[in-house]
Amino acid sequence: MTRQGLVKQLAIENNTKMVLLVMDGLGDLPGKDGKTALEKAHTPNFDRLTQSSVLGMTVPVAIGITPGSGPGHLGLFGYDPIKNLIGRGVLEALGIDMELGSSDVAARGNFAAMDDNGIIVDRRAGRLSTEENQKLCAMMSDRIKKIGNAEVIIRSVKEHRFVVVFRGEGLCGDIADTDPQKTGVKALNVQPLKQDAAGTAKLVDEFVKQTNEILKRSRPANTVLLRGFAQYPDIPKFGEINKVRAAAIANYPMYRGLARLVGMEVVPTGDTIESEFETLLENWDKYDFFYLHIKKTDSYGEDGNRDGKAHIIEEVDGRLPELLELKPDVLVVGSDHSTPAPLKGHSWHPSPLLLLSKYIVSDNSKRFTERNCASGGLGIMSAKDVIPLMLANALRLKKFGA
Amino acid sequence: MTRQGLVKQLAIENNTKMVLLVMDGLGDLPGKDGKTALEKAHTPNFDRLTQSSVLGMTVPVAIGITPGSGPGHLGLFGYDPIKNLIGRGVLEALGIDMELGSSDVAARGNFAAMDDNGIIVDRRAGRLSTEENQKLCAMMSDRIKKIGNAEVIIRSVKEHRFVVVFRGEGLCGDIADTDPQKTGVKALNVQPLKQDAAGTAKLVDEFVKQTNEILKRSRPANTVLLRGFAQYPDIPKFGEINKVRAAAIANYPMYRGLARLVGMEVVPTGDTIESEFETLLENWDKYDFFYLHIKKTDSYGEDGNRDGKAHIIEEVDGRLPELLELKPDVLVVGSDHSTPAPLKGHSWHPSPLLLLSKYIVSDNSKRFTERNCASGGLGIMSAKDVIPLMLANALRLKKFGA
Repeated sequence: MTRQGLVKQLAIENNTKMVLLVMDGLGDLPGKDGKTALEKAHTPNFDRLTQSSVLGMTVPVAIGITPGSGPGHLGLFGYDPIKNLIGRGVLEALGIDMELGSSDVAARGNFAAMDDNGIIVDRRAGRLSTEENQKLCAMMSDRIKKIGNAEVIIRSVKEHRFVVVFRGEGLCGDIADTDPQKTGVKALNVQPLKQDAAGTAKLVDEFVKQTNEILKRSRPANTVLLRGFAQYPDIPKFGEINKVRAAAIANYPMYRGLARLVGMEVVPTGDTIESEFETLLENWDKYDFFYLHIKKTDSYGEDGNRDGKAHIIEEVDGRLPELLELKPDVLVVGSDHSTPAPLKGHSWHPSPLLLLSKYIVSDNSKRFTERNCASGGLGIMSAKDVIPLMLANALRLKKFGA
Repeated sequence: MTRQGLVKQLAIENNTKMVLLVMDGLGDLPGKDGKTALEKAHTPNFDRLTQSSVLGMTVPVAIGITPGSGPGHLGLFGYDPIKNLIGRGVLEALGIDMELGSSDVAARGNFAAMDDNGIIVDRRAGRLSTEENQKLCAMMSDRIKKIGNAEVIIRSVKEHRFVVVFRGEGLCGDIADTDPQKTGVKALNVQPLKQDAAGTAKLVDEFVKQTNEILKRSRPANTVLLRGFAQYPDIPKFGEINKVRAAAIANYPMYRGLARLVGMEVVPTGDTIESEFETLLENWDKYDFFYLHIKKTDSYGEDGNRDGKAHIIEEVDGRLPELLELKPDVLVVGSDHSTPAPLKGHSWHPSPLLLLSKYIVSDNSKRFTERNCASGGLGIMSAKDVIPLMLANALRLKKFGA
């Protein structure tokens, strides 16, 4: 029996409320002053909360492994992120808020430049402008609506990137990339990776041919390279496993998409942190479980901007009182991965975790920081254990065995 | 190779002595005064012992999972408690000190009440007295000795509960419950869950018919409901895996039964903690490994009585000097699960663990408490790693690989 199978077998419903507050990329490394963003931020509300909570660290995938947003979130949602891979095409579609059906095949596309002999000379067509990209996508969408029995949906992302989705019965996403990943060679032929994908590969091949025809007078973007063909992973629904009505509140499309992918209900919200907390308050009575996603801790981490990151932490700190007034039975503050400012990117470091419930032995830590979390009472745990731990603290798991 | 397979391959014999002192349900949550039972208890001997020991926490099954006594103990004995399930019928038989053979099929029975149409009106027959229960079991035992080639053994437990064991060649325990788990419906028919169980199901069906005949004039207990049909799990013997002569000392039948199930030798002992320690002293020369079980930390936890739990801890504390005088090479004090007084039941919380051996780096902790264990040098480990850790500290595991 899998970890999740065990949880599914033991989970029961009750009236408790749980909040999983994800501060994306929260974990940090010390700057020149020796302080991380969490250590630098002025957080009176987190400080008070920490004193009645228990701290720990979560390892997103495995020690040393830096996760993308997909595996980072799947782990935190209780799924094995190694067994439940989300293909790049699907992730790219989720990132622009496209809703995918279970048999859709999605791929990421690059506009690229080739010479008269079909040799790729620039894989990104000079990183054309997003505006130009949108124009080309509109032109393609206008001329390619359907290939065979499959609907073809083309959506601009930005610069040289777009998404193409093939929608129809019996499609199969096991198709090799056409992107050769280098210049000076031709684009690769469309190849099915297994027998079932032969039909879909023909459609994709036809798509490439039509696209080349449409783009033939466009400069420099006169062809496309496709990669990351993928379909929705067939994963069990979060609500069914954990017996909860789960709401997702996120103002970035990728995270709405990831929540939708596991079957959470995505509640519309605004662009600000304030609006996300307001949405939580407004929907408090309608759900048992809330996933609330804060993006900008990660964005500032990616920019190497520790002060910006600390400022976002302070902004979330300012919203805590209204969240705590709701008296959630279980509150977890955590992250899908670390995005240390000095690394300007995702990292492998475990993520700080805070758990508040009636049934904990508190650490007596005074601040929610990486250092205190590393010696916290929860220890260093796998991210996939967060949901079972939340359910346990909500008294939503029956005893295992007699 | 499994974890246990690796240990089996590396285990060697020597003259060291190991003690696993299990204080059932030891882990606690803070009461209104902020203290757990361990924090509250006056334990000069544990305090002294702690200063030369290393502390840690054990997760019985997996994070968030509350184990029953079966999985809790199997984990602590080094078995995977998810793969080695003990059925309720077997556990119930162990709980009244019945010795089971490997092909016996055991089930838990309820005396129940049905109306003239066979509709169950009370699943517990008004929770009849244990005395009445004993009378009915005696009557049934008197009239049903054998069905087909199988011996039938009926034993009273208490109130409405009894155990029935079918003993014979080729029996199979994969049989569905007859207990419908609700009133207003008939008892379920006896159904084999696989082909091999068809013959056994017929015997059980005949047992139910004969029982109904015997009980037909009894009020209110005029029928029986059966559930948890089970056979002994086929698990490797503790002594063979770990190369030890293992003795179990426990004054509650369930724990003697669990020890017998893994192949430990059960040494007779008295009803008190004092008598258990005396038994250990008397048998010191005869075995390498001692499992000593203290029940009442759990019992008081189940009652929500933290003071009672603290008092039992103090009583064990008083016996520690005589145990330490034996100079065990390895002493572990731990637990199968937590039973926090505020929860009045088993819980998912990791269990405090203490390890004394010549080969440790001590924590310099001054008290054996949940908080100190959570930051102890052993970290938060899986309960199934306790036995390998004990063997290692007893220098009973060879090097792995060259």
